[in-house]
Amino acid sequence: MANATITLTTDFGEDSPYVAAMKGVILGINPAARLVDLSHEIPPQDIRHAAYFLAASLPFFPAGVVHVVVVDPGVGSQRALLCVELNGSHVLVPDNGCWTGLERTLTVPPRVLRLTPSSYWRNPVSPTFHGRDILAPVAAHLSLGVPPELMGEEAPTWLRLPTPRCVITPARAQGEVVFVDHFGNLLTNIPAAVLADATRPVRCVRVGDREVTRLVKTYTDAPVETLVALISSTDQLEIALTQGHAARRLHYSVGTPVVVEFGPLPMNSNGPE
Amino acid sequence: MANATITLTTDFGEDSPYVAAMKGVILGINPAARLVDLSHEIPPQDIRHAAYFLAASLPFFPAGVVHVVVVDPGVGSQRALLCVELNGSHVLVPDNGCWTGLERTLTVPPRVLRLTPSSYWRNPVSPTFHGRDILAPVAAHLSLGVPPELMGEEAPTWLRLPTPRCVITPARAQGEVVFVDHFGNLLTNIPAAVLADATRPVRCVRVGDREVTRLVKTYTDAPVETLVALISSTDQLEIALTQGHAARRLHYSVGTPVVVEFGPLPMNSNGPE
Amino acid sequence: MANATITLTTDFGEDSPYVAAMKGVILGINPAARLVDLSHEIPPQDIRHAAYFLAASLPFFPAGVVHVVVVDPGVGSQRALLCVELNGSHVLVPDNGCWTGLERTLTVPPRVLRLTPSSYWRNPVSPTFHGRDILAPVAAHLSLGVPPELMGEEAPTWLRLPTPRCVITPARAQGEVVFVDHFGNLLTNIPAAVLADATRPVRCVRVGDREVTRLVKTYTDAPVETLVALISSTDQLEIALTQGHAARRLHYSVGTPVVVEFGPLPMNSNGPE
Repeated sequence: MANATITLTTDFGEDSPYVAAMKGVILGINPAARLVDLSHEIPPQDIRHAAYFLAASLPFFPAGVVHVVVVDPGVGSQRALLCVELNGSHVLVPDNGCWTGLERTLTVPPRVLRLTPSSYWRNPVSPTFHGRDILAPVAAHLSLGVPPELMGEEAPTWLRLPTPRCVITPARAQGEVVFVDHFGNLLTNIPAAVLADATRPVRCVRVGDREVTRLVKTYTDAPVETLVALISSTDQLEIALTQGHAARRLHYSVGTPVVVEFGPLPMNSNGPE
Repeated sequence: MANATITLTTDFGEDSPYVAAMKGVILGINPAARLVDLSHEIPPQDIRHAAYFLAASLPFFPAGVVHVVVVDPGVGSQRALLCVELNGSHVLVPDNGCWTGLERTLTVPPRVLRLTPSSYWRNPVSPTFHGRDILAPVAAHLSLGVPPELMGEEAPTWLRLPTPRCVITPARAQGEVVFVDHFGNLLTNIPAAVLADATRPVRCVRVGDREVTRLVKTYTDAPVETLVALISSTDQLEIALTQGHAARRLHYSVGTPVVVEFGPLPMNSNGPE
Repeated sequence: MANATITLTTDFGEDSPYVAAMKGVILGINPAARLVDLSHEIPPQDIRHAAYFLAASLPFFPAGVVHVVVVDPGVGSQRALLCVELNGSHVLVPDNGCWTGLERTLTVPPRVLRLTPSSYWRNPVSPTFHGRDILAPVAAHLSLGVPPELMGEEAPTWLRLPTPRCVITPARAQGEVVFVDHFGNLLTNIPAAVLADATRPVRCVRVGDREVTRLVKTYTDAPVETLVALISSTDQLEIALTQGHAARRLHYSVGTPVVVEFGPLPMNSNGPE
């Protein structure tokens, strides 16, 4: 266990010394821990962004990893800090809903502990840096095999982010953009199955006030700067501007409505099918 | 020692191949070295930024680590390269003052060597990339247990950055902003003790030409977009705009004057106390 | 082999979950793999940038490393994925020319395999994320000692980027800017030897429509904001604005023409010589 992997996901950026301080604290307790950066570029205090990020990445990790997440606008307030046990791994997170998406991917209910003050924390704890003074030492001790129940107690409840609504009727599926990726592609909450149902051909796809030109399998299936719809690598409807940054060019962002209309006369498509 | 940790702090960014080249050189000499990125986003050639960064992060690391720092506007000139031994670790830095803040945190004087040309360097040495050709190989050899005195000689003296002045009188403490973090929070050189002295209540805090609204313990203790003063995680007076980016919104930066006035009629406060 | 090093170079940024997902997949197959980030800030889909980056960094790594490169505008199309064996290491890349510069550094021809569908891939493969579903698992299996020929077959041919022309005559060398680094320095395709030939003194160096003021050894050899020419750390002619960002200030970028004129009356110089 000593050389366990500890991943770090924060909104700290790399220009500030906060990530480095956390790494120092972890290695001070477990010098053999293997640190893996997932991201330090979560937009500041953007819990929804973190929630999407974690749901789209943590499920790929094997059991036995400790994941530390610090996107924590409520630091120092009464919000709890959680240790979530799922699939044999531990996720340390502020109780602000940032693991809601991850929870939805689970088939077995997770065990959730609320961290309680203990000699495993740094002392004194800064009211503005629980990542360094609580989560980093707890992660390091978990990686050394300290049982989580020595550091917390069952959480009766925890916060969940509201799920953006996706309504599917025989005539249409109506959802929204839930994530904008680094390339400007728009990930929606409309499940891929909606596009792949032969009994219900897609007549058109709209994002904001624009009609998508084409259904495709991948970005190279349409000429440059075409607005296309495809199935994302996370099995959702994705909207992209081929070789362009859809979000910036069309001024769409998280929350922009997306509609898929069903009906005869299916739209121009070379996949997905 | 073979699997020793080597940390990297640079202003190279990740878009350029310079960090990657250094990692290759290190692993070429010590394939078992464990590389830990601290930052590659120090603003280009910003020695004061690096100095704050190092002072706020390196003290958290355990003994036995080799820290490599490349923020080096004077590369290729007569400036020396140093190997600083402190608390059982080694810090490899250009002699440009970037470890001044770190030195101030020490209780025991450090041992400082000036690196001298040796067969431990890459050959030939590029005049514009001492990080790759000198610091990376020296770090790798240190991590393998090569004694530093084989690679350098006692430095009689070294450069120190001037300390920004903080003047404390019975009436006021007068300092300045010394660091702007990723969230836009303003870290000052006024020690936390100034806010926590019951015999000397704080009447008001000013930054630039603005009066701070409130003393708080943490960011959630005041409504959104309130200008607050608090004790930073590094035990200094910090000024923040709650849920906002103080530096960008108020146009403050390193060097902006900060004043704490003492006197009766203490200001609006829910901490720190 | 189990604790082999796997490096990652992508254009994914850290704000998206794609790098994290790849790391999870790799560690899921080989939990002992040592992950080393080279860059996730290759500009989106910029194959030429990636090509320069790889040529200037991978040659510094020792044998036995697996390098994964995902800059892949053609993901999901018919373009192949390659496993290139060179100097005892493996480079996994899309067949889009992004390793052209690296190939030019080789003295022995590389062995190039084209990855073929296999049980070593994740299943199903997303048409838009071959990094996660093909390259990450193949890298992990390579790091565990799976022979590459179980995962691919000899590639009869592969794509090469056109080499930007550098024409050298007795009167002049004519090339262009091939890379702009994080500091705004302009790296050219004119070899350093051109500046160091005593029989052919340099009369002047021009970039775009400007004349370079001075030949120097390093950035501190000229006053601030001087346009200087020097030998880069990769042994090419480099043009820099001392303590400034040449590319941004002078509006030069990849492709800007650069000319070195030979002749008597050599230009102002304090090196290189």
